Amino acid sequence: MAKKSKSALKEKKGVSISEITNASSIKSIKEKRKAEIDVDTLVKSILKKDITALSRAITLIESKNPKHKDLASLILKSCLPHANKSIRIGITGVPGVGKSTFIEAFGKHLTSLEKHVAVLAIDPSSTITKGSILGDKTRMEDLVKDKNAFIRPSASGDSLGGVARKTRETIILCEAAGFDVIIIETVGVGQSETTVHSMVDFFLLLKLAGAGDELQGIKRGIIEMADTIAINKADGDNLKRAKLAKVEFNRALHLYPEKSSNWQPKVTLCSAIKNEGIDVIWNIILDYIRTTSKHDFFNKKRHEQNKFWLIQTIEDQLKSDFFNTPKIKKELANQLQLIENNQTTPFVAADYLLKLKI
Amino acid sequence: MAKKSKSALKEKKGVSISEITNASSIKSIKEKRKAEIDVDTLVKSILKKDITALSRAITLIESKNPKHKDLASLILKSCLPHANKSIRIGITGVPGVGKSTFIEAFGKHLTSLEKHVAVLAIDPSSTITKGSILGDKTRMEDLVKDKNAFIRPSASGDSLGGVARKTRETIILCEAAGFDVIIIETVGVGQSETTVHSMVDFFLLLKLAGAGDELQGIKRGIIEMADTIAINKADGDNLKRAKLAKVEFNRALHLYPEKSSNWQPKVTLCSAIKNEGIDVIWNIILDYIRTTSKHDFFNKKRHEQNKFWLIQTIEDQLKSDFFNTPKIKKELANQLQLIENNQTTPFVAADYLLKLKI
Repeated sequence: MAKKSKSALKEKKGVSISEITNASSIKSIKEKRKAEIDVDTLVKSILKKDITALSRAITLIESKNPKHKDLASLILKSCLPHANKSIRIGITGVPGVGKSTFIEAFGKHLTSLEKHVAVLAIDPSSTITKGSILGDKTRMEDLVKDKNAFIRPSASGDSLGGVARKTRETIILCEAAGFDVIIIETVGVGQSETTVHSMVDFFLLLKLAGAGDELQGIKRGIIEMADTIAINKADGDNLKRAKLAKVEFNRALHLYPEKSSNWQPKVTLCSAIKNEGIDVIWNIILDYIRTTSKHDFFNKKRHEQNKFWLIQTIEDQLKSDFFNTPKIKKELANQLQLIENNQTTPFVAADYLLKLKI
Repeated sequence: MAKKSKSALKEKKGVSISEITNASSIKSIKEKRKAEIDVDTLVKSILKKDITALSRAITLIESKNPKHKDLASLILKSCLPHANKSIRIGITGVPGVGKSTFIEAFGKHLTSLEKHVAVLAIDPSSTITKGSILGDKTRMEDLVKDKNAFIRPSASGDSLGGVARKTRETIILCEAAGFDVIIIETVGVGQSETTVHSMVDFFLLLKLAGAGDELQGIKRGIIEMADTIAINKADGDNLKRAKLAKVEFNRALHLYPEKSSNWQPKVTLCSAIKNEGIDVIWNIILDYIRTTSKHDFFNKKRHEQNKFWLIQTIEDQLKSDFFNTPKIKKELANQLQLIENNQTTPFVAADYLLKLKI
């Protein structure tokens, strides 16, 4: 998508296809374009809900070019006072649960209510393959065409932390561009749910009826993070099983202690493909916001999340600096071997390695 | 308890009570005792299951005196080849669940089977109050008198990490002293269960029937860590409710995916006060060891735990070094304020603070 809009831009500027096939002219065009980036104009366009400007700013955030990083920081700083005004919703569920269909139905419901919806994704597998779970946008054909919807493929990066940062900053840009609902999708591999959970107001877990959790591959701890569990594909022959699953999940949820939000997680049925139960979920979310705003949990949670990301980013960097030192890398392996041989304890080994770094 | 054994030692050496009340003579006695510590002799005594020597070595591990730390390291090193030979069991449950009564009944059952049982505790509250959940040993009167049992109050310390290290090292000493079952008790405040879980082979959760988890104050995630849930006080009028709770917990456990140990957590009933169901729990533990030893999970888990403690200790130290720098402390507060005011992002603030340290 980013590529598409770039070439669209180029075409607008009268660059012909033949020119683009010439490598050196591409370079000079790119240099010209770089020079053209004017932060003020770009920010103004973003605030005017200009999608091309928004896409361009996101591309800068995702860029590894240090110059782009500086530009991105400036843009973010200007957008910040206009951020924080959306409802951020995390959606997870294993492949096959119908996430795309659900997000399309949910997104269309929201745009029908005059909401502006941005859909982002965190896909840890993309950190390896540089692929993207939302790359193939044919998955959400109707929503893509909707003028009040914005779908952005997942950022790629070297680490989940890097992807998280890019997504977190993209949220700020989308909010500045006037999107009032931000959906963040994840496939639930590795730590991605925890990452998404740490940047959203409301966390929705999509499930299927019948299939045990073993089969659904849901990781431990996910159920506890959910503010609502929606059992999708609750239609036709599946409806009875879905209702049974609802009872079972409700029972399971009651085994958990109350959340600090005072919110009792809900279990609800839906059929994204038949567009049933989607409005119910949106109403649950509105209810959640009302409930958690009453005792200021809603804002408190956002503050806690900001603090979490600040501390987390620092800690990740400290660890990465330490463990990527060649001397430490080598000695860590030695010390692990000594521990295995009962020749040292983990604590004595830690002291040794820490002294080595200094 | 440490104090008691110290004064006992003093009495053996013919120091009269009147002398002890004299501060300066106490000091000279202490100095004499310090000089007397001979690592070789102490280790030999530990290996001969001399409880006084064991207690003394643990006191050295717990000491903040740098000289003692060096001695403790030497003792640990000599004990290490004799360690790793026990079954390490973590036991948790909220106050009122009957932990002391359970541990007493369980410990007595084990000593009746010729086992040597050590009971340690991790009590995060003791890091603040310097108190100890096992300090009042009248809680386990019978077990205290048992010559094959050793009960040690929880170490105190400035941090849970510090307490964890002391407990982890005390396990090594107890194993060297021939204890073949090590029980680590925790009250389940803060992160203490996770800490205990990371140093034991088997994790037992004690619960009560009837009372909801809200009332029992069980934290999220604990149920997932349990290898077995024992519903205590399953006697008299309570038995019916306990049986119902068993069904409910079994159902809840099935909602979780299989553990990497391939072990399906059990739910069982017991009455510690009536000494019922205690043998069943021990048999479950033996079954667990058989099952997890078959595919070498048992040893693999211990190796993973060693690695975990190595990495964890290093990471804790890196963080503590960073965040305790006065300059960082001050600027962290400023940056948090800027984030709250929408003037910076957590990521930009993190970059700023990391550069400041260098």
